Amino acid sequence: MQRHDGRSDNQLRPIQVQLGYTTSAAGSVLIRCGETLVLCTASLEIGVPPWRKPKSESDPILGWVTAEYSMLPGSTKPRKQRDRAKVDGRTTEIQRLIGRSLRAVVDFKALGAHTITVDCDVLQADGGTRTTSITGGFIALCQAIRQIQTSAPILKDSVAAVSVGVVNGRPVLDLDYVEDSSAEVDMNIVMTGSGKFIEVQGTAEGEPFEQSMLNSLLDLGRHGIQQLTRVQLGESREV
Amino acid sequence: MQRHDGRSDNQLRPIQVQLGYTTSAAGSVLIRCGETLVLCTASLEIGVPPWRKPKSESDPILGWVTAEYSMLPGSTKPRKQRDRAKVDGRTTEIQRLIGRSLRAVVDFKALGAHTITVDCDVLQADGGTRTTSITGGFIALCQAIRQIQTSAPILKDSVAAVSVGVVNGRPVLDLDYVEDSSAEVDMNIVMTGSGKFIEVQGTAEGEPFEQSMLNSLLDLGRHGIQQLTRVQLGESREV
Amino acid sequence: MQRHDGRSDNQLRPIQVQLGYTTSAAGSVLIRCGETLVLCTASLEIGVPPWRKPKSESDPILGWVTAEYSMLPGSTKPRKQRDRAKVDGRTTEIQRLIGRSLRAVVDFKALGAHTITVDCDVLQADGGTRTTSITGGFIALCQAIRQIQTSAPILKDSVAAVSVGVVNGRPVLDLDYVEDSSAEVDMNIVMTGSGKFIEVQGTAEGEPFEQSMLNSLLDLGRHGIQQLTRVQLGESREV
Amino acid sequence: MQRHDGRSDNQLRPIQVQLGYTTSAAGSVLIRCGETLVLCTASLEIGVPPWRKPKSESDPILGWVTAEYSMLPGSTKPRKQRDRAKVDGRTTEIQRLIGRSLRAVVDFKALGAHTITVDCDVLQADGGTRTTSITGGFIALCQAIRQIQTSAPILKDSVAAVSVGVVNGRPVLDLDYVEDSSAEVDMNIVMTGSGKFIEVQGTAEGEPFEQSMLNSLLDLGRHGIQQLTRVQLGESREV
Amino acid sequence: MQRHDGRSDNQLRPIQVQLGYTTSAAGSVLIRCGETLVLCTASLEIGVPPWRKPKSESDPILGWVTAEYSMLPGSTKPRKQRDRAKVDGRTTEIQRLIGRSLRAVVDFKALGAHTITVDCDVLQADGGTRTTSITGGFIALCQAIRQIQTSAPILKDSVAAVSVGVVNGRPVLDLDYVEDSSAEVDMNIVMTGSGKFIEVQGTAEGEPFEQSMLNSLLDLGRHGIQQLTRVQLGESREV
Amino acid sequence: MQRHDGRSDNQLRPIQVQLGYTTSAAGSVLIRCGETLVLCTASLEIGVPPWRKPKSESDPILGWVTAEYSMLPGSTKPRKQRDRAKVDGRTTEIQRLIGRSLRAVVDFKALGAHTITVDCDVLQADGGTRTTSITGGFIALCQAIRQIQTSAPILKDSVAAVSVGVVNGRPVLDLDYVEDSSAEVDMNIVMTGSGKFIEVQGTAEGEPFEQSMLNSLLDLGRHGIQQLTRVQLGESREV
Repeated sequence: MQRHDGRSDNQLRPIQVQLGYTTSAAGSVLIRCGETLVLCTASLEIGVPPWRKPKSESDPILGWVTAEYSMLPGSTKPRKQRDRAKVDGRTTEIQRLIGRSLRAVVDFKALGAHTITVDCDVLQADGGTRTTSITGGFIALCQAIRQIQTSAPILKDSVAAVSVGVVNGRPVLDLDYVEDSSAEVDMNIVMTGSGKFIEVQGTAEGEPFEQSMLNSLLDLGRHGIQQLTRVQLGESREV
Repeated sequence: MQRHDGRSDNQLRPIQVQLGYTTSAAGSVLIRCGETLVLCTASLEIGVPPWRKPKSESDPILGWVTAEYSMLPGSTKPRKQRDRAKVDGRTTEIQRLIGRSLRAVVDFKALGAHTITVDCDVLQADGGTRTTSITGGFIALCQAIRQIQTSAPILKDSVAAVSVGVVNGRPVLDLDYVEDSSAEVDMNIVMTGSGKFIEVQGTAEGEPFEQSMLNSLLDLGRHGIQQLTRVQLGESREV
Repeated sequence: MQRHDGRSDNQLRPIQVQLGYTTSAAGSVLIRCGETLVLCTASLEIGVPPWRKPKSESDPILGWVTAEYSMLPGSTKPRKQRDRAKVDGRTTEIQRLIGRSLRAVVDFKALGAHTITVDCDVLQADGGTRTTSITGGFIALCQAIRQIQTSAPILKDSVAAVSVGVVNGRPVLDLDYVEDSSAEVDMNIVMTGSGKFIEVQGTAEGEPFEQSMLNSLLDLGRHGIQQLTRVQLGESREV
Repeated sequence: MQRHDGRSDNQLRPIQVQLGYTTSAAGSVLIRCGETLVLCTASLEIGVPPWRKPKSESDPILGWVTAEYSMLPGSTKPRKQRDRAKVDGRTTEIQRLIGRSLRAVVDFKALGAHTITVDCDVLQADGGTRTTSITGGFIALCQAIRQIQTSAPILKDSVAAVSVGVVNGRPVLDLDYVEDSSAEVDMNIVMTGSGKFIEVQGTAEGEPFEQSMLNSLLDLGRHGIQQLTRVQLGESREV
Repeated sequence: MQRHDGRSDNQLRPIQVQLGYTTSAAGSVLIRCGETLVLCTASLEIGVPPWRKPKSESDPILGWVTAEYSMLPGSTKPRKQRDRAKVDGRTTEIQRLIGRSLRAVVDFKALGAHTITVDCDVLQADGGTRTTSITGGFIALCQAIRQIQTSAPILKDSVAAVSVGVVNGRPVLDLDYVEDSSAEVDMNIVMTGSGKFIEVQGTAEGEPFEQSMLNSLLDLGRHGIQQLTRVQLGESREV
Repeated sequence: MQRHDGRSDNQLRPIQVQLGYTTSAAGSVLIRCGETLVLCTASLEIGVPPWRKPKSESDPILGWVTAEYSMLPGSTKPRKQRDRAKVDGRTTEIQRLIGRSLRAVVDFKALGAHTITVDCDVLQADGGTRTTSITGGFIALCQAIRQIQTSAPILKDSVAAVSVGVVNGRPVLDLDYVEDSSAEVDMNIVMTGSGKFIEVQGTAEGEPFEQSMLNSLLDLGRHGIQQLTRVQLGESREV
């Protein structure tokens, strides 16, 4: 049995990355995974937030990276209300995940007195918006970091993310919205280019799942991350 | 003396319109005026807000059109904070203006029991974001309206908007950010395709201005609107 | 055909100004235009907001004038809810307009390290509350400014405001609530005592309007402003 | 030793009541106690809040009376910030007290399906704004109630309020701002025209106080309420 | 006629105090009055709020004591919604009362540069939660104060609180929820161990009440406070 | 090398469960894991939220279970500010996790038209508050469910949660605050009594981690869950 869009179980959706899509922010990437379309911008600012300031003179100055995530109202059907009165729980969770994931590969001492804010704004949503935001957000972060003069390398590794899940009883890679809606298990994996885990979040949407299924999902995720890392490297070389 | 980007005083910035940029909303237009880039989506919903419901059985059902406006954080430099805790005064003013302008050309009786929400999200800001939102928002509105089966025409006219202003003592058309920042007078004109005013908003940023200057600005605006209307018509035919 | 209250088309409503109505604020004016009643107070404070502070030692200290507008709940029928959870869009627009209008006639260098907050609280609303607020707010501002010792004059000109509009197809001056509710075009004009425009805001509530109508409205507004300026001058002399 | 303004210890400040000050609300009273000036309006609405609706068909329809209190920003020096983001604790306490006090003399069955909102807006504050609001709010409430056609009397009694306190070790009546600021004990008494207590709120601002002092303060309050009740009756007859 | 739980009119509910219930805060007391159960913690912090800082060098450093009150959602039936969006009026009133009451017995000069926050969280509510919070909060405050090294005594007196009220026409002490719901008069008395009033708050819930009833209620309250003070002293000695 | 409190790497902290700690809510459990102390109450309400209502007559009525989580201010040192203005991201994430975990073992058709709200209020925090909330919350949920008359069993399985992590390079079970603060990897595992995963959330706080470490952590978690399940069963039998 094939997936509804003809992909094999371990196949990613087609990916396109458009670097420098806008010019106002230091880094700007338009990333498309299937029908999911996210604009990731990385704004670079001199200085760090007050709570990040060194406590004593001997402490080094550590930079900061943070992320915000939002879905444009027109990115879904029916229209999603704007996060104006309050930010919903899902949005908060996602932007905390993106921030943690990007920070895991940054050497803050090398970054020095800079704050980078990565904004991931979903223009069109078809599943996997949080993982696409991490994968694209890393590229925007790279672009912003290139503008910083520094002797030591600021990035320790690359980072990408992908969703895996159980659909119709079978583990599959990179779920779109249709699959995500009917998935029995939903898992997001954030991994470095060197194959180490930064984050594993798996949730049983229906029935709880066995250890053996968890292992299959982790393998599938690792496979997907390797391909995404190659795309990220390709883009990086181009810049 | 020329303008800083080489345009003549009565010349618009280059305009590009990309119809159907996303597919989740009924209407979707990416409009670029110079370096200003706005994604306008029009979401179509069956039904009208409670306060719009007919009071008695003999009242006709009147549809509704509303608009929201927002600037993505990465659309400006320095980064603009997200409208999350509260919507700032400027945003409120702009989205009320966009809504009023679009409603002015809609026959709500013909629209019937539909609500259309036009979202104007600024991806990159270089002056004229509110006028570009109206001009592009009208095209997205057209696209959404085409999906409604109706005997009577829903649109009574077209609508476009442009800014005019006094820069270095001279009236000029379609100000970019650099010009806008130093303008002595700033005016937004919203007009129908048939040449009638929907809205005139002029503000002296520095010195108050004379009646003769007001007249020059109105002439310039009319000239710009005529060209924008032609672009809108071209797009409409294409769809 | 006469207007519903017997006025001619170019006639203002009766105006009364009561200076020093309260004594807690530096300036205090109760202004009545027909049945519209606004208490304008101008509170004087030493110092300027942080963002207004000079960036370098050679920069001059510039003062600041700001305005707030509110309608008492009992000022309308039915009762208007208090602006407590959030300030509605209309209120925000109006108080930004009042602030801009008053600032247009102030020499901030002469004002020096002072902040003046003009509060316009509508005790009774019968149309034209924003224009009445500007006209009365200017008088309260004058009163507060008199308490400042300064060598250079702080005010560069006077400022007043009036509404004009199209009612029953005819351009009329100073609309009350009944007229405002049925106006086809609604325009607010803010002008200096010397006859220059500070702000022009015209909106087609029903049909878009022609250039010739715009010209008639502007003439009518100019006529009204001249009379309001005379009232303001009379009050100023009295103090 | 006399009080700072020459009054004897058991003397009220001069009171003025102006009925029908505005005409938009059903009841409207401008009350002045010394330099404290409060505009009390009573807005009458058909219907009751959802939670007040009868649970079964045999339950009678009970009306509702509620109150809101606010100080205009210009009513104090220095200027008081507007209650916009959030209502402060003091405001909440005061408007709950006003509402409870007014409700204590209303027969809600006789009031029937009506809601009356009494708004007390302080135009100038010089101590005793909450008690003045109750005393004036009752008069506005009377005025609004007169517009209701009913067979049974809606009011069971009258209500007035006054502050008493210990200043310089002596119990005094009707404290102004200067006295209030230095009072050792601050007490508000709300009483019916027939001499019964609705509310007693006494707070030691400095040293805790003895039972004997409490007795003196209660006597003084009773004396003040009697005079206020006569003023209220006088006004009521006039209407 | 007896009370519904068999108590005599002047009898308190059984009281239990568990000192040091938690160890994270400097003071921690679990107090049970009948079925009302409140966890009072006193958190000690070095420093004072900005507005409490001395204005000049010769001013003494004054400490600060503040209180917060909250009911856990599961403390009542039906469940009470969490105070998340906004704190309701009742909560605000109660925590202001607790703070004032505790501050009345503190010598802030002796407290010096310390801030103590007393949190009263109601685990189970059966009437008298605010008075139980004051009585228990004082014990937690004592415990926290013992951790401060100081030459002068920080506490000037003890403080306890109790409710009294009129139920079925008779004055009774320490109302539980059933009595509170049907009380004709509801009064909270806050008193020092030495028998002086800090706060008296009496409200007619139904009919206004006579002076003679007020006197009976005050006597009853004084009787209850004396017993609560003995419990507090017992606990204090134990620590 | 031993752990700082003498436990072996795969040893849980001492657990105590006190059933029926309060009586206002249908279920009430005070659970202590080491020094972490959480009061879990389960409030039972007839009816379901509007969005949960059947869409058509043939749809079954499905119940609902939701959870809220909060830390009392005095539960940590320094004091944690109350979630009043806004709920922080961490709190939102945790209460969503608790809700999802409890819902995974509930048969909503058998639950029928009931809503159960599980409130987890942390009285003292020493690491593992979210996992303790799930483990204790399940017991409170059981207690509430026993009050529902139903033919089919409402619970499909039991659920418990535990934290595992990497401290000083070694995988350990059930981290307390000291360990949590220095952990290199932090993972929460939610599992059914029958040994299936409901949720796996692992985060690299410092260095990204290898697949082999992930496997060790999962084994350790499974071991802890088995013991917690036995404690839960013991409690359930007792009731």
